[in-house]
Amino acid sequence: MTEKKILLDHGSGGKISHAMFSDLILPLFDNPELRQADDGARLELRFDEGFDGGVDSKGTSLAFSTDSYVVDPIFFPGGNIGDLAINGTVNDIAMCGAIPEYISVGLIIEEGFAIEDLKLILKTMANAAQKARVRIVTGDTKVVPKGKADKIFINTSGIGKIPAGINVSGANAKKGDAIIISGTIADHGISILSSREGLNFDSDIQTDSAPLNGMVQDILNSGASINVLRDPTRGGLGTTLNEIAHQSGVDIEIREQDIPVRGPVRGVCELLGFDPLYIANEGKLIALVPEDEAQAVLEIIQKNEYGKDAAIIGRVSKKSEGRVYLKTTISGLRPLDMLIGEQFPRIC
Amino acid sequence: MTEKKILLDHGSGGKISHAMFSDLILPLFDNPELRQADDGARLELRFDEGFDGGVDSKGTSLAFSTDSYVVDPIFFPGGNIGDLAINGTVNDIAMCGAIPEYISVGLIIEEGFAIEDLKLILKTMANAAQKARVRIVTGDTKVVPKGKADKIFINTSGIGKIPAGINVSGANAKKGDAIIISGTIADHGISILSSREGLNFDSDIQTDSAPLNGMVQDILNSGASINVLRDPTRGGLGTTLNEIAHQSGVDIEIREQDIPVRGPVRGVCELLGFDPLYIANEGKLIALVPEDEAQAVLEIIQKNEYGKDAAIIGRVSKKSEGRVYLKTTISGLRPLDMLIGEQFPRIC
Repeated sequence: MTEKKILLDHGSGGKISHAMFSDLILPLFDNPELRQADDGARLELRFDEGFDGGVDSKGTSLAFSTDSYVVDPIFFPGGNIGDLAINGTVNDIAMCGAIPEYISVGLIIEEGFAIEDLKLILKTMANAAQKARVRIVTGDTKVVPKGKADKIFINTSGIGKIPAGINVSGANAKKGDAIIISGTIADHGISILSSREGLNFDSDIQTDSAPLNGMVQDILNSGASINVLRDPTRGGLGTTLNEIAHQSGVDIEIREQDIPVRGPVRGVCELLGFDPLYIANEGKLIALVPEDEAQAVLEIIQKNEYGKDAAIIGRVSKKSEGRVYLKTTISGLRPLDMLIGEQFPRIC
Repeated sequence: MTEKKILLDHGSGGKISHAMFSDLILPLFDNPELRQADDGARLELRFDEGFDGGVDSKGTSLAFSTDSYVVDPIFFPGGNIGDLAINGTVNDIAMCGAIPEYISVGLIIEEGFAIEDLKLILKTMANAAQKARVRIVTGDTKVVPKGKADKIFINTSGIGKIPAGINVSGANAKKGDAIIISGTIADHGISILSSREGLNFDSDIQTDSAPLNGMVQDILNSGASINVLRDPTRGGLGTTLNEIAHQSGVDIEIREQDIPVRGPVRGVCELLGFDPLYIANEGKLIALVPEDEAQAVLEIIQKNEYGKDAAIIGRVSKKSEGRVYLKTTISGLRPLDMLIGEQFPRIC
């Protein structure tokens, strides 16, 4: 890490974010849980140590995750910062193979913020929590003077239960695994972008923000072997696949023509020069499953209300140092790198 | 709640904060855990529901808490926002009678923030975590454009284990309980205030920020009966005692002359017209214990490195609607209300 000042890129979820994590944060805080570098930490319960009436954990463990939401604007087509904050943390926990149960909410509000807007956001959070079947059990509110924050920032942290026998991690990708995406990509990022001041244009593009824990349970309850689950948020599908390839030490190949992108989203991307592979999603997951189970898992996902556009988009080609390749419709195989910096800030 | 805009008072931890919680937040998010309204939520583990190899919880439970830190300035005598963020959440969990284990860290950083300052803050967090024997296991970093946040805000959430048989809550105060404070009050708030631009004056007043989980374990391991544990942060001792009186439906009487306040802190308070009873602490706890065990618990606290100035300062006088009275050195008994709004913002 050679920079002297924090750049927007440090919050991008791309290469520069990763460098800050591995060069600065991980060495200082180092421990086995943090080193997993998954969407949430997997915590082994150790209730048997030195307690009266202690509990034998029998392999059950907890997932624990946190995210702060600083999206701008706070209201956008299809949602607002409130449901984004609930769904985002619900999904990070679900991606550990866990059942999300409890959510904390930390509000940082700018002085002068309209109470009506706060009410609407909190109501949206309550509805999202109900839909995802999680409970908001603890919270905190801070107010800072006008001009010291931008309207409202929300942190959510969450706890889920990982049933015994579940072992889902970005480090578990195996040669031959099929790569499934649960639906169209780039909807969230483009919905935010298209609702920004100065960039308003008519479109019916909405955020895809949704809770994916039901879908994850559908898959796990089927008894299918799932090696990796990940939601491609900041940095998009391209960056998340690079994370998986790196964590697992494998090469991944995806086929451009099989990646679902809505027409209007593709249109905006072409108009503004963005690559949908690097645009944030908030209601999509990537699942890596053994080839012979891929079709069955795909069908399970497609039956879920948030998975009807799911598709198999590629495979893990070999053990390697962790590269991702895109088979384009025109020019054959090209390397698909991680997003370097920030395409546009405050997307979530 | 009749206001139309968010005021600094809504983040004060005083009456107006409480009104927002009970009028706006609780009705929307309502559930038994949130209704406890303690420093952290007490969660019953239910690993026996529908799991292969599930776990029988035998009464063991989790504590879960969250806090965002927006303190200004971020560096102040005796500490910085980093150790404040670790100790604050460690203490909220400890006040549930729990052993804090895991911490999450959510950073919101302003573009242009000096990496050297970030390094120092993260290093302080790592040291504080080590001292408190907790592990930072998951995190998130967001960067917002210059001017959209003030330097750095930190959210920490935490998980602790509540051993079977422990039942500590603000709702458990009983008639006759002695009230113990673990040391001098108002150090943190006055250290922040005295380091603010324009208010600089020479003094050796330092924050009292410290992890109190060791002290809580010392008390609990002694087998003493502890009814209430609470750390008097925002709103100070006066507000926290009002919370306890209200939650438990009791009247509390404290004696002004027995409340420990350092000379320089008292001096600044007198100079600026602040009441130390309403100034934030970050390394103190209030313990309510049956009268006949009070002396023994006091001595345990005094042996702890953060408890040498501990004192018994009053008692629970009767079942009631929840009032607090101060026996002053001059004028007899006067009602001590909850802090209404904000004495000064961004104290933690």
